[in-house]
Amino acid sequence: MEFALSDTGEPTYILNFKESEVIKKSKLGFEIKKDSLSLKDQFEVTEVQTSSFDQSWEPVWGEERSIRNHYNELLVQLKQEHTERALNIRFRLFDDGLGFRYEFPEQDQLIYFVLEEELSEFAMTGDHTAFWIPGDYDTQEYDYTKSKLSEISGKMESAITPISSQTPFSPTGVQTALMLKTEDGLYINLHEAALINYSTMHLNLDDKNMVFQSWLTPDANGDKGHIQAPFNTPWRTIIVSDDARDILDSKITLNLNEPSKIENTDWIKPMKYIGVWWELITGKGSWAYTNDFPSIQLGVTDYASAKPNSTHGAHTAHVKSYIDFAAEHGFDGVLVEGWNQGWEDWYGNSKDYVFDFVSPYPDFDVKAIQDYAQQKGVEMIMHHETSGSIRNYERHLDTAYQFMKTHGYNALKSGYVGDILPRGEYHYSQWVVNHYQYALEKAAEYEIMVNAHEAVRPTGISRTYPNLIANESARGTEYQAFGGSKANHVTVLPFTRLIGGPMDYTPGIFEMDISTLNPHNNSHVNATIANQLGLYLTMYSPLQMAADLPENYMRFPDAFRFIKDVAVDWDESIYLEAEPGEYVTVARKAKGTSNWFIGNVNGFESRKTSIKLDFLEEGITYTARIYEDAKDAHYKENPQAYKVRQIQIRKNSKLKLRSAPGGGFAISIIKN
Amino acid sequence: MEFALSDTGEPTYILNFKESEVIKKSKLGFEIKKDSLSLKDQFEVTEVQTSSFDQSWEPVWGEERSIRNHYNELLVQLKQEHTERALNIRFRLFDDGLGFRYEFPEQDQLIYFVLEEELSEFAMTGDHTAFWIPGDYDTQEYDYTKSKLSEISGKMESAITPISSQTPFSPTGVQTALMLKTEDGLYINLHEAALINYSTMHLNLDDKNMVFQSWLTPDANGDKGHIQAPFNTPWRTIIVSDDARDILDSKITLNLNEPSKIENTDWIKPMKYIGVWWELITGKGSWAYTNDFPSIQLGVTDYASAKPNSTHGAHTAHVKSYIDFAAEHGFDGVLVEGWNQGWEDWYGNSKDYVFDFVSPYPDFDVKAIQDYAQQKGVEMIMHHETSGSIRNYERHLDTAYQFMKTHGYNALKSGYVGDILPRGEYHYSQWVVNHYQYALEKAAEYEIMVNAHEAVRPTGISRTYPNLIANESARGTEYQAFGGSKANHVTVLPFTRLIGGPMDYTPGIFEMDISTLNPHNNSHVNATIANQLGLYLTMYSPLQMAADLPENYMRFPDAFRFIKDVAVDWDESIYLEAEPGEYVTVARKAKGTSNWFIGNVNGFESRKTSIKLDFLEEGITYTARIYEDAKDAHYKENPQAYKVRQIQIRKNSKLKLRSAPGGGFAISIIKN
Repeated sequence: MEFALSDTGEPTYILNFKESEVIKKSKLGFEIKKDSLSLKDQFEVTEVQTSSFDQSWEPVWGEERSIRNHYNELLVQLKQEHTERALNIRFRLFDDGLGFRYEFPEQDQLIYFVLEEELSEFAMTGDHTAFWIPGDYDTQEYDYTKSKLSEISGKMESAITPISSQTPFSPTGVQTALMLKTEDGLYINLHEAALINYSTMHLNLDDKNMVFQSWLTPDANGDKGHIQAPFNTPWRTIIVSDDARDILDSKITLNLNEPSKIENTDWIKPMKYIGVWWELITGKGSWAYTNDFPSIQLGVTDYASAKPNSTHGAHTAHVKSYIDFAAEHGFDGVLVEGWNQGWEDWYGNSKDYVFDFVSPYPDFDVKAIQDYAQQKGVEMIMHHETSGSIRNYERHLDTAYQFMKTHGYNALKSGYVGDILPRGEYHYSQWVVNHYQYALEKAAEYEIMVNAHEAVRPTGISRTYPNLIANESARGTEYQAFGGSKANHVTVLPFTRLIGGPMDYTPGIFEMDISTLNPHNNSHVNATIANQLGLYLTMYSPLQMAADLPENYMRFPDAFRFIKDVAVDWDESIYLEAEPGEYVTVARKAKGTSNWFIGNVNGFESRKTSIKLDFLEEGITYTARIYEDAKDAHYKENPQAYKVRQIQIRKNSKLKLRSAPGGGFAISIIKN
Repeated sequence: MEFALSDTGEPTYILNFKESEVIKKSKLGFEIKKDSLSLKDQFEVTEVQTSSFDQSWEPVWGEERSIRNHYNELLVQLKQEHTERALNIRFRLFDDGLGFRYEFPEQDQLIYFVLEEELSEFAMTGDHTAFWIPGDYDTQEYDYTKSKLSEISGKMESAITPISSQTPFSPTGVQTALMLKTEDGLYINLHEAALINYSTMHLNLDDKNMVFQSWLTPDANGDKGHIQAPFNTPWRTIIVSDDARDILDSKITLNLNEPSKIENTDWIKPMKYIGVWWELITGKGSWAYTNDFPSIQLGVTDYASAKPNSTHGAHTAHVKSYIDFAAEHGFDGVLVEGWNQGWEDWYGNSKDYVFDFVSPYPDFDVKAIQDYAQQKGVEMIMHHETSGSIRNYERHLDTAYQFMKTHGYNALKSGYVGDILPRGEYHYSQWVVNHYQYALEKAAEYEIMVNAHEAVRPTGISRTYPNLIANESARGTEYQAFGGSKANHVTVLPFTRLIGGPMDYTPGIFEMDISTLNPHNNSHVNATIANQLGLYLTMYSPLQMAADLPENYMRFPDAFRFIKDVAVDWDESIYLEAEPGEYVTVARKAKGTSNWFIGNVNGFESRKTSIKLDFLEEGITYTARIYEDAKDAHYKENPQAYKVRQIQIRKNSKLKLRSAPGGGFAISIIKN
């Protein structure tokens, strides 16, 4: 990389990879609100510091037991003479990419200020291929579009599909992590790291010049950030390689975050779980307890005298059957949604006092369930849907977390469906980003693990707060019950959404015909069963759900076995094959064992592959169980056609495998 | 009053007093957002219910020991046939005025909706005289303008003086409580009662037709209220009389609020207090502890190593001297502002995490002060300045209240100086009105009395939550140190601001030349000492400050005696004389005694009066101490000229008194 000031004192940088240009000369800076003195030009360099860093650290959970953080650093200290304002830019150059951030040092001439816009540029060298979703202040739950950069504006309208809360902002606005591929076969990924107390960054493309420009999420007044110096922005990251696998393997995002601020992390544990959830998502059952009331006033509405509907999922007997199933099949936890009062009118009403997070429905016996789960050795996972009403959530947060601890819950799924309250704010604005962080840090005080849905996409913060065990923040499995996602969706997510951190994708659907659960729902899950198994490896997360109903798993016990066997925490991960939109294959070594698991997901075209197992230990024989698509399997036509075979393998073995369209494979490799 | 539907089904009402029209035919209704089906016309009456009510109740504190609530009620049930929507309007007609509110009953066709505007009209019968301040979403801290209605638009610009947070909205927008006087000598007061979970109402004048129209405070999106049926709006009140004293004596506002929701009220006690305050307001001392830092990061900034400035008011020794003074002179409490970290950059920065409400400055020894105050039998009054950052306040509220209880504080002054965070909201929008109520109700849980400054003006809520012992919400004494208020300001406030509830006006300034405290402050207090004494009666509040410095009181011990002697809670109050802008004289009987106190404040013109004492007990002799303006007293020229005389009086005595311009008098009447 190179830093330079232009003739007019604009900070600029370029980035090369091997002999190729990756980022052409790109400007850096800010437009400040109500201030003629912008922070974009007329700078002089006052000092330059270089240094290098090479240390390894051990994550509480992760893809690797140990992560190396190795970079050369360049700190450029800038000053505008006429304003006496200082701005520093810190670059960290890794083997696999670059991170940079702005630092506003303490100074008299710039203390409190409002950002009109951040002016970071990422100038592309050509009309690359991009895997993109629409830039949006409120959601990332879109299917990915693969197109040339020049085609984005033409495809934007059809890319914007309806979602419960959405605010797209530009015909060439896209989200990060953005995955790009050049004609020369270079892979480029643009994202950010350590998004704390700042607006979420989107990218807006100047598609004449092929320059991406940072586009921060505004607040209710249209402002893009309130800053108090000293302050450091999040890092802007550019991961680059000529091998797509390196993008998935990159630890830049984690490394640019601060080390853990949680001292004792014993209570943070990866989990495999099931839940009263898919039956609700598909419309087989309901979150709501009754159909009696047109609207609910918490504390006033008399649930005790209400007539229960026949569809409420979270009733005690049903939950106990899930606990039984979890105990029998070795799942760590059971999630239950729709356990608390308020679901009758929770959505779409801009309702302030929508839930109190501590009042169960009459048919959900908190104490009995706690006792039963404890007796069976199963953890209960709490659910807090906020409906986007974040003031209300913060008002109840202490009580809600205390309620969890009192009733034996150590893990939480939170949700932010619908428009944000305070009204005028967005899911990704500084105000609301601050809220997610507040809820996360407070959860850490209570020793609670958080899996936040519809929150801002992660940026590696789980290094600093490892109780953030997962996020949704992308189009998850639920959309397979809302009309279906693209069959290659899961081959893109590892290159985009997962760059920031684990996703609670909720894989493991075995029954692809949703009308079998709900005759009014004709949605089809665009995946084969083998693909669903592969996801437990390709969608890395320390929190993995088996999302389908117990009865569906019981129909396919040999396939279900893989979900039971697969680990959720790892000593080592090797991306064997990867191409965004096409395929991802990864091998992972289960933490503290000699066992390996391999997963593959495949795109639209059927694909053959041959896998070398040279990562296995020398001189050892392993039993491999291979779960793969049957010959005629197809995500649409024949999704349940799979084979399971068992073979003996060694380090020098090769596996020949074939993945169907929308298919995949999963392999467990157990040391004999 | 009469209710009628117009030809097009618009709800309308009129109000008469004796033979005169007070409110001409005025429309009622709502414009609903994103809805072609407005709630303003095409109604039919489905049912009419009438009833009457006559009960007395005893307030926890107040002007009277017992308050009669006596009205006839008319409930009109309306329906729009084409929309099947129901809207009820409830009228309560008292001897001294009318209250009405809208009620949205539970119904299928109207559950959640957004108000574009409330369409309540108050059609005047002519070009009345009004005592008004500019309609503003953020402040009421304006001097009053007396003008004809037709003159409002011409005088608006000069009426809008600079204030820390202000958002005027219309050249004919004014605030309630609005005091009006007709050419025929009728007094009309427009306000609201029981403002809970709704936007604050302003009035916008159509000055061609002399019709006031309700104008609600918008939220960040410009919406004027989010409603969930069933819901009742606040009451709109019209107090009417041909005797100005009846306006002051009216209990309509209190009576239209719900009875106390606090069961045990033993902990709620009227208080007279002093404080480390006026020295800060005048600029003699500072809230801030140090001048070392350009900005503060709570928890990061190292106060322990900072150099203290020499002006910090809230240091332990100084506070102890206030405790000594309070104990010696019989004050119940001592308020201390500037005790907590963060005052160095608290204002004007839109700073989110501005205070934590529990971290004292290094020179404020919480424990030592608690012990000292307890030993001296003095209550400490806590101060929470939020700087308008209400999310931050709510996040710390439990901790802050708990800190108070731990350290022996039972009363709180809260403040909301500056623009509101969440940004885009206003001091008077539904979102923020909801916050004040939240903080008040939570304070009640902790048994804490609240005196909220810069919050929304009160609407009688202290009946329901009597721990709301006072508010500011108007131009208080502090403005006498910021350039001065009009000399007749205090003759208007009882007719306007005080209609909703008590004001922490902080009277009792004896030294009118502020430059004696701070040579850089040339402000002059536009009042005589006798006027300042009269305020303890005319500005009714269960919380009364003696705002000046102890050393100034010691210079005038005979005048100070009245402040020491005067009661703060009453069995009976009699408004003897009243004319807005001119004078107010009131006699009050101290609670549980036979002693009376009389106070008068006077406007710009010197005035003689003769007061009958026929409210005294038959056959008893009393000692009256009369504190009055000296002959040559004048609020500007000679404000400290007063006389004190003592005489014996009986029921049939008459007192001849004279008030100087900006003057007044105060009388203590003690049974022999």
